[in-house]
Amino acid sequence: MQEIQIGLLGAGVVGGGTLQALAQKGDRIAAALGCRLRVKRVLVRDPEKTREVPVDPALLTTCPEDILDDPAVQIVVELIGGEEPARSYIARALEQGKHVVTANKEVIAKHGFALLALAQKRRVNLFYEASVGGGIPIIAVLRRDLVANEISQIQAIINGTTNFILTEMEQGRDYAEALRHAQRLGYAEPDPRNDVEGIDAAYKLAILATLAFRTNVRPEDIPRTGITGLHAKDFRYAREMGYVIKLLATARRLDGEIEAAVHPALLPLDHHLASVKGVFNAVLIDGDQIDKLMLYGRGAGARPTSSAVLADICAVAQSILRGTPEPIDLRTDGARLRDFGEVESRFYLRMQVADQPGVLAQIARVLGDARISIASVIQKETDESARSAEIVLMTHLAKERRMAEALEQIRTLPVVRQVSSFIRVAK
Amino acid sequence: MQEIQIGLLGAGVVGGGTLQALAQKGDRIAAALGCRLRVKRVLVRDPEKTREVPVDPALLTTCPEDILDDPAVQIVVELIGGEEPARSYIARALEQGKHVVTANKEVIAKHGFALLALAQKRRVNLFYEASVGGGIPIIAVLRRDLVANEISQIQAIINGTTNFILTEMEQGRDYAEALRHAQRLGYAEPDPRNDVEGIDAAYKLAILATLAFRTNVRPEDIPRTGITGLHAKDFRYAREMGYVIKLLATARRLDGEIEAAVHPALLPLDHHLASVKGVFNAVLIDGDQIDKLMLYGRGAGARPTSSAVLADICAVAQSILRGTPEPIDLRTDGARLRDFGEVESRFYLRMQVADQPGVLAQIARVLGDARISIASVIQKETDESARSAEIVLMTHLAKERRMAEALEQIRTLPVVRQVSSFIRVAK
Repeated sequence: MQEIQIGLLGAGVVGGGTLQALAQKGDRIAAALGCRLRVKRVLVRDPEKTREVPVDPALLTTCPEDILDDPAVQIVVELIGGEEPARSYIARALEQGKHVVTANKEVIAKHGFALLALAQKRRVNLFYEASVGGGIPIIAVLRRDLVANEISQIQAIINGTTNFILTEMEQGRDYAEALRHAQRLGYAEPDPRNDVEGIDAAYKLAILATLAFRTNVRPEDIPRTGITGLHAKDFRYAREMGYVIKLLATARRLDGEIEAAVHPALLPLDHHLASVKGVFNAVLIDGDQIDKLMLYGRGAGARPTSSAVLADICAVAQSILRGTPEPIDLRTDGARLRDFGEVESRFYLRMQVADQPGVLAQIARVLGDARISIASVIQKETDESARSAEIVLMTHLAKERRMAEALEQIRTLPVVRQVSSFIRVAK
Repeated sequence: MQEIQIGLLGAGVVGGGTLQALAQKGDRIAAALGCRLRVKRVLVRDPEKTREVPVDPALLTTCPEDILDDPAVQIVVELIGGEEPARSYIARALEQGKHVVTANKEVIAKHGFALLALAQKRRVNLFYEASVGGGIPIIAVLRRDLVANEISQIQAIINGTTNFILTEMEQGRDYAEALRHAQRLGYAEPDPRNDVEGIDAAYKLAILATLAFRTNVRPEDIPRTGITGLHAKDFRYAREMGYVIKLLATARRLDGEIEAAVHPALLPLDHHLASVKGVFNAVLIDGDQIDKLMLYGRGAGARPTSSAVLADICAVAQSILRGTPEPIDLRTDGARLRDFGEVESRFYLRMQVADQPGVLAQIARVLGDARISIASVIQKETDESARSAEIVLMTHLAKERRMAEALEQIRTLPVVRQVSSFIRVAK
């Protein structure tokens, strides 16, 4: 039986999971493919380190050339993560005519186009299913199954860490407490910045939007707001009004332009994504043929992610056996990313104000002058002694720029002590 | 630009949708594929008939040989539906070395194995994404993206007609009324048997289970119960106990055997499938790597279904351009379908009984003797004059055979006037 040799870069959580799956399912996969997958070399930083998944010491190397320059290695699986040296390794592997499978969202989001062009030039495959949504086959579905669809919108919960934290806050915990819980469970890093500030979600959204809209959406161009400013109180008000709060990654095509953003959003309770809880991810796609399609599953973890890595490895193996790589489609419609100030949304606003007559009138006047109309208002007396009250209001559709300007003026009103929360409302 | 010629069998709802999509998206698809798809001939029963989607009369033919025997036709798209003559047409097309794309669940469920073997022999592709779940790419996901997974269970709502009817009954309508509404909206056929008796769902489940468990599950071997025996009242009791009622198609691997069945089931309100409403479909997959994956979308209709047909056509076109068909995996694990009597489940039971002391005790004794334990009971006085009461009970896990036997005895109890409902409870 023919053998295909794999070089693995990285033996961390996903790398270990992939090695384990390859070992456990080797025979089954071989029978399915009609060829054997063999891991020839594994690049690690520290060969002495004890690993959850033990690796044959003979396979370990600290020298990338042992894999990237080995002509016997046909598939390089990059599971190091981070921008460099991962990007250089991938580029070098492609240059050497090797197929590449990666789970690296940062590299694909920032350099996917260049690397795919290189893969096309060298007539090899570059697959990255595991870079978005863990075990959810969202890349394959967009790339292949929705080919007949004009996609108009993607709404996604694609960061499990933040969704876990927000699910905890829904139960009344405050942000710091929920974050600590996520860290205790290993869902959040000691330095959670990448997740809680929406950076990770922006990488994934850039990959999805680039595929869905056939345009090169760069992660640094995606406006993003993290979840660090959210308060348990907002979840209670949201519930009162029939909403939940999620970190939403959204991209849509509108009048030939692309809108893309990552930020917390109030979702109506009957929204398809409203019931996505804990570390689970979900991607909701609107297409002209399918109408709505949702994929839901585990967006992270060794097993789900290695499920995607193995699917890619098997697809590459098949294309090697068939003698031709899968075609790569680099055409772009050249649709532009819309200036965020021009993007329309509804807004949720929570303010501490002086408990005196005419306060709401002053705020309403500012919004009215900006031609932003109010959809609903809740006013509650909070602290009688301090004679302060709390106003929560939701607007109708308004442009980001107008809203930002109005917000500036509201902040300057003497009767407004503090604007505590400012959250977008999705539909 | 190279041209690939398509012969279309059938120009009904899905056929029309496919022709329309091919016309509207021809340029886009051509650009993506690097070749042009051209419909050379369309087989219809009546060329004179006026169609929603007008077809160039020059393309129409009533003679299948014009397509099946035309060497210029490389892809035959079968959208006639029904077992014959569709099966013979597909077989003949494959025999002639043509690739086949079909949306025919009945043919694939009953003859898929034989036809795939034929396709393998003639080195062509036989794709059937549209046969299950309309616009939901469930076949491709099972066939390709979950290759690394040992799948333990599939739970699915794969018949939109019945799910629409059940969603209506949830709102208090009775079956007949809900069915009429579905027929008025065109969701249900004038003769709804195929849908409401679970035949359609059994075809689809046979296809999914055969793929997921690599064993040949035949639709006639799948025990099924339709929805015609359900009462609006049961939906109220279910809600009271924290459940909804859905027509569930379920298959699982247990101790080397396969359990498969289609029947109404009480689903806990927090079940992933509990919120699937109206004509929407959803498939929930348990795999050892992915844990849980759910796909949700429109399971029928011209546009969603033709989205799947077009994806298959494009996949075939690519394999033609690449010069090799996609490999077909016909290996089976040979796992047997478990005798339904041996299948364990929980049960919901609603009975009209005499309103007198000791009735519940008698029923409990029958169940106790069968070693079936009761999980919960609701007893309500219904008609004082008739001195009759209603008992609703839910059991713990019990084997189908034992439950059937106990049910027989309960029916013979003089105090039991009628067993009105008998529904399985899923988790």
